[in-house]
Amino acid sequence: MEFVSGMTRKETLELEELVKPEYVGAPVKVNGAVHTIRDMGEVAFVVLRKRGGLLQCVFEEGRTALPIHEIRESQTVELTGVIAQDERAPHGIELRVAGGRILTSPYEPLPLPVGKWKLGTSLEAKLNNRSIALRNIRERAKFRLQEGIVRGFRDYLYSQGFTEIHTPKLGAKGAEGGSNIFKLDYFHHPAVLAQSPQFYKQMMVGVFDRVFETAPVFRAEKHNTKRHLNEYTSLDFEMGYIDSYVDLMEMETGFLQYMMKLLRTEYAAELAVLDVTLPDTDRIPMVRFDRAKELVSEKYSRPIRNPYDLEPEEEALIGRYFREECGADFVFVTHYPSKKRPFYAMDDPADPRFTLSFDLLYDGLEITTGGQRIHDYQMLRDKIAARGMSEEGMDQYLGTFKYGMPPHGGLGIGLERLTMKLVGEDNVRETTLFPRDMSRLEP
Amino acid sequence: MEFVSGMTRKETLELEELVKPEYVGAPVKVNGAVHTIRDMGEVAFVVLRKRGGLLQCVFEEGRTALPIHEIRESQTVELTGVIAQDERAPHGIELRVAGGRILTSPYEPLPLPVGKWKLGTSLEAKLNNRSIALRNIRERAKFRLQEGIVRGFRDYLYSQGFTEIHTPKLGAKGAEGGSNIFKLDYFHHPAVLAQSPQFYKQMMVGVFDRVFETAPVFRAEKHNTKRHLNEYTSLDFEMGYIDSYVDLMEMETGFLQYMMKLLRTEYAAELAVLDVTLPDTDRIPMVRFDRAKELVSEKYSRPIRNPYDLEPEEEALIGRYFREECGADFVFVTHYPSKKRPFYAMDDPADPRFTLSFDLLYDGLEITTGGQRIHDYQMLRDKIAARGMSEEGMDQYLGTFKYGMPPHGGLGIGLERLTMKLVGEDNVRETTLFPRDMSRLEP
Repeated sequence: MEFVSGMTRKETLELEELVKPEYVGAPVKVNGAVHTIRDMGEVAFVVLRKRGGLLQCVFEEGRTALPIHEIRESQTVELTGVIAQDERAPHGIELRVAGGRILTSPYEPLPLPVGKWKLGTSLEAKLNNRSIALRNIRERAKFRLQEGIVRGFRDYLYSQGFTEIHTPKLGAKGAEGGSNIFKLDYFHHPAVLAQSPQFYKQMMVGVFDRVFETAPVFRAEKHNTKRHLNEYTSLDFEMGYIDSYVDLMEMETGFLQYMMKLLRTEYAAELAVLDVTLPDTDRIPMVRFDRAKELVSEKYSRPIRNPYDLEPEEEALIGRYFREECGADFVFVTHYPSKKRPFYAMDDPADPRFTLSFDLLYDGLEITTGGQRIHDYQMLRDKIAARGMSEEGMDQYLGTFKYGMPPHGGLGIGLERLTMKLVGEDNVRETTLFPRDMSRLEP
Repeated sequence: MEFVSGMTRKETLELEELVKPEYVGAPVKVNGAVHTIRDMGEVAFVVLRKRGGLLQCVFEEGRTALPIHEIRESQTVELTGVIAQDERAPHGIELRVAGGRILTSPYEPLPLPVGKWKLGTSLEAKLNNRSIALRNIRERAKFRLQEGIVRGFRDYLYSQGFTEIHTPKLGAKGAEGGSNIFKLDYFHHPAVLAQSPQFYKQMMVGVFDRVFETAPVFRAEKHNTKRHLNEYTSLDFEMGYIDSYVDLMEMETGFLQYMMKLLRTEYAAELAVLDVTLPDTDRIPMVRFDRAKELVSEKYSRPIRNPYDLEPEEEALIGRYFREECGADFVFVTHYPSKKRPFYAMDDPADPRFTLSFDLLYDGLEITTGGQRIHDYQMLRDKIAARGMSEEGMDQYLGTFKYGMPPHGGLGIGLERLTMKLVGEDNVRETTLFPRDMSRLEP
């Protein structure tokens, strides 16, 4: 009988091993994709793209059993040779190629110059050839950093006693109602796609006290802007036994601090490739919604048109204000007007026109919406009634409150937006692997 | 100006702190939900449900400022007192209550006896009151273990150089075609819900070499069995530069070994609550599909009806065979017939009626399907043509191969099924937070 006993060590080495001093002068075997070729006649430089970065491989006439003229861009190859130090090469090492073999070959030349340092093509061209464009080192690096963000979110919340949950994306009714919901037929029953895990994560606070989810959400919004997507990844958490909504902002700040540390240590290569300077998260200013409007109105001589709404331009100015006044990249704007928040938001007892809620702005763009929720059954029903809403389809949600719930609150972070701001892009599609917008359903 | 500087320490303590010897005799503050009340007259035992487990709290007449008659099941409370050791109490400690306050109160008694050790209600009743039923300690523990599985999957793959990706669930065409796809209207364009991230994860192998995703998948299958769901969480990976399909089984075995270790160390409490004995993953037997059929046919005197198909009963017998013959909980069945695998499966060059693919059976149930994929553009097109399929809607997928791809393969694991087998349940709905089947779209 034959058995599988776990991972066996591969003969081929990865970049994180190859850069170790003990490999200088050692015979090694590597594999990778042919990223660029520079043929100088007697010597040729073939740069391999590996998952950890680029590896320069030197073909010398008469010294390499694999003829250089057989090597073409976008092949995948396996090479043998000896590692040598060379300051001019990426990561300071190169492979002096002795031999090797071609694993696979392309059928056509690449449609985009992925071997260039900066791809330099339009967003449209990149999205139309997404799986090719991402072979560019800088394009790829954005999504490595995106991984670091999600990983930091989960690891930090695990350490804070949160439980990860997986809530359904198909349901009979949307969490927050409204017309921005994708509808479909589910075995002859009307169904919708979840626009957020809101109801479920609240219901699970009664079970696990603290929960989080990192999953897709679906918004049938007819926006076509640089910051909207119709499907995106939401980093959600909900926590019970809070003393106030400030607990939520503290938890988010803790996550941001942890995540930046993780990026600095585990994703340093990608930060360098993209030349990213991480923002300061040591202390994040907080300001009331109404006060923020006054501050920017005064400083930038901009009349307040609607005291209960925040226009995108105002958000940008609030970001600018706190950058100028205290060098902050982030700012928490608190106490959003009740009428701009969903029914389950907890009104401020001191002034019920406002809620115990907040947005987090990053460089003037909203990347988080959160706040304390109503936990009292009757208060929740009263607010639903006061808004002229129906309780239809909400019995499971409301029932959870009928049987007792701790004081709680939570938030949601848009992953692609946070990535976009972090890497300094200005269109959220740049930091979405396969974006979905009103005109794009492919690839 | 006010600032948020990260997490501040809470006054209230959690169970993992309270069980430390230094807290014996110390005055502490705790919060939690009233799980059970046993009032003996002069003394009452109130068990609090906290995220880490149960905490016994003792109310003694004349010694507790908070009157016991004010305490009701399902309230959430904050209590002060002194920690004392008591072997009979959960975790060996109890809180001698000095005082406290009620945070929230329910409006109605619980519809299920969640305070009992075993809930003892029907699956139907549990699902109809999901957010309440999960407050039972044993029900809740299943999903803590589920967290450990996903966490183990990600952490192991991070350590093996995989990149996490987020692929769209809305698309213009399904990855594997067929009729089992949910359809919807996307801004007046026909769209489908992803039945797997298959195409995307393959396309991303050309970018990151190794990728994984943990996300929902949607199957409009008209099955109504104990092991099928119409939405479930799929743990997917895809890896490039493989030497053979055996690499994939080794990677999965490595994950299983890592995951079991993680459960043993970080989720010991939940394993104890559910009385779970972890399966052996040191070595997992592998057997060819045709040979497996012969073995069970011979041993259990069962005629082979269709040499190219595996019936659920045969799967169960294969599981039984390897348990009896070598004490194995898992078995890899390899070389599935080509006609039972999707077009992108790599046929075995030695006998193209079979593929270089496998399933992993856990206790006789398929929890993984995987295998090597075709990486050559022309071979892929030939197979599509030979099957009489159309290339329509596959240009981005096929284009990726046209421009070169490494040899690769991957697999998908059904999270809820793996959890079900691990905790010894026989219906996958028991280990799905909010199951979706043909007749259930709520809660």
